[in-house]
Amino acid sequence: MGDGPPVPDTRVLAVASHVVSGYVGNKIAVFSMQSLGCDVAALNTVQFSNHTGYRQWTGTRVSAQEITDLYRGLQQSYLDDFDMMLSGYVPGAQALEAVGQIAQDLKAKAARAEQPGSFFWVLDPVMGDNGNLYVAQDVVPVYKGLIAHADLILPNQFEAELLSEVKIIDMPSLTRAIEALHSRYGIPHVVITSVSLTHPDQPTKSLSVVGSTMTSARQTRAFKIVFPAIDCYFSGTGDMFAALMVVRMREAVWNTPGLAERASWLSEDGVDALELPLAKAAEKVLASMHEVLTKTCQAMDVKMERAQAEVVRGEEEGEGKEKKLHLLKSKAAELRLVRHLDSLRAPTIEFRATKF
Amino acid sequence: MGDGPPVPDTRVLAVASHVVSGYVGNKIAVFSMQSLGCDVAALNTVQFSNHTGYRQWTGTRVSAQEITDLYRGLQQSYLDDFDMMLSGYVPGAQALEAVGQIAQDLKAKAARAEQPGSFFWVLDPVMGDNGNLYVAQDVVPVYKGLIAHADLILPNQFEAELLSEVKIIDMPSLTRAIEALHSRYGIPHVVITSVSLTHPDQPTKSLSVVGSTMTSARQTRAFKIVFPAIDCYFSGTGDMFAALMVVRMREAVWNTPGLAERASWLSEDGVDALELPLAKAAEKVLASMHEVLTKTCQAMDVKMERAQAEVVRGEEEGEGKEKKLHLLKSKAAELRLVRHLDSLRAPTIEFRATKF
Repeated sequence: MGDGPPVPDTRVLAVASHVVSGYVGNKIAVFSMQSLGCDVAALNTVQFSNHTGYRQWTGTRVSAQEITDLYRGLQQSYLDDFDMMLSGYVPGAQALEAVGQIAQDLKAKAARAEQPGSFFWVLDPVMGDNGNLYVAQDVVPVYKGLIAHADLILPNQFEAELLSEVKIIDMPSLTRAIEALHSRYGIPHVVITSVSLTHPDQPTKSLSVVGSTMTSARQTRAFKIVFPAIDCYFSGTGDMFAALMVVRMREAVWNTPGLAERASWLSEDGVDALELPLAKAAEKVLASMHEVLTKTCQAMDVKMERAQAEVVRGEEEGEGKEKKLHLLKSKAAELRLVRHLDSLRAPTIEFRATKF
Repeated sequence: MGDGPPVPDTRVLAVASHVVSGYVGNKIAVFSMQSLGCDVAALNTVQFSNHTGYRQWTGTRVSAQEITDLYRGLQQSYLDDFDMMLSGYVPGAQALEAVGQIAQDLKAKAARAEQPGSFFWVLDPVMGDNGNLYVAQDVVPVYKGLIAHADLILPNQFEAELLSEVKIIDMPSLTRAIEALHSRYGIPHVVITSVSLTHPDQPTKSLSVVGSTMTSARQTRAFKIVFPAIDCYFSGTGDMFAALMVVRMREAVWNTPGLAERASWLSEDGVDALELPLAKAAEKVLASMHEVLTKTCQAMDVKMERAQAEVVRGEEEGEGKEKKLHLLKSKAAELRLVRHLDSLRAPTIEFRATKF
């Protein structure tokens, strides 16, 4: 440390879920952004005891009205001067509409001030994974209506399929999906996270993200970053990825003279895919992620041995033992970011974007 | 960075208010502890748009039942394995009783396991300041009932008066107040924050904290740390102080062989006041605080000039102008911790405890 935060003063509105224990949603996103110097306003859409992957939890959701009221509270005290907004999991269509309204409101304010680059919305369209929808059906059309107002979206492969209506089975269909997102919605920046297609130049046991910043004619400028898969199950990685993209995108744009003043921070057409701020940001984010996940996985192995022993010793029987093991596993898999802050600031690993 | 967190793996339950924008309650406490490597479970007792010093806010309180439910949620998933607990502002007597029950429950669990030092409760009895009570009258007796179960309390001068029933007007009465807290409640560790009594050996424009760890016979072992006052009005300093005390107390105890296994981390009678882990912790905490507050105050001056100009230019009149200026001032006074993380890890200033 000592060399200061990587971004200038940056005020971010982060809207996502809050868990008392563990690291998903705003619980990981807010800390990630604060650690890198952002002043984060954290609007929590739920307060749950723990994330739903444990299969049991307590707590309450925040209503659409409460979300709107909290935003009005910020407005009336001149606290709505946000440079960026990150929205993650929002429970239900009505609450999502309320969040979308906030983003559109902030966008309109920037337009009125004739400062088009002064507000940037990163939208993580949390709907499902691996073919399973884990939000209500009526949430999908709400996201489709909101994408056009966002500056950067971060769908996983399944969510990209839902939004683009293109089934992704290989590299050509992935390209078509990105094209559809740019052309149909006019969304300037897209990163599709955790693409698991096999490809001749991609080693097995690896994953990739594929990103693109559109040109003025809404053409794709796509890059790919391949990174080794880690043989552990984690929660909250998408939320951490999104939060770090907020910071690193801001940093990369700040380091490109004039870009921060352009609407949606859209690079000129002459800029190559591999030179995009989006690509530079994703490279750094993946390096930090890979280090934190590797360290979490190492600690997890030790914890799981202990958990196994505890369950074997315990008084539970049959299903009770299985349930306890699942709960202890879920806990052992919580991201260990607070123990490895240096991986955020200055990761030692490097990943490089390649042409897609 | 790079030299790792100052504490071993530490799981803290933090119970306090949450504000969307700004830095009071859990919003500053959770980040402070996470930045120093603690795994913090954040149980938010309210979600307000901003702190009440702005004189207007929106949001909702969490009920006593919801607080209890969230804790039950942690328990049922083996997530109640806390090393420490920090409780701050809790809205109302019923909610405070629910929080007190959680602490007593965790204390009882540690006792049943015959590991008396394995749980440590830091209780910040948030009731008022400078002669003004800002909680309901019925909250005071609840705190009086809970103090006996806490390990460390951090009242300000006014709160120390309420709890000890000793009016603090000079050094002898301050000593009597601490004596009363140790003897009546058996509270092992006390730090009275922001003592503003004048004293021959204390320069004007300075403040002090006075702390004491009792002996086995409940005698006081008091120390004082004098530090320069900063001519700025801040919010959230008490919450940041409490959070940092959690971490630095854990660190100081960890560096004292055998102490972590003793009930309430109570040093042996032979340990001098100035050698107490409580004194070592408070020295480090005040150094960090002083740096962050100094930097916040510097940035505030610049922001206030801008705010003044904005208000003069604005369309508001009379009371409207005053209100706007107050709101902009409140915002400018928010702690700038996220921009100065190095002041947490490794402050360059040093303060030393002296005999009281």
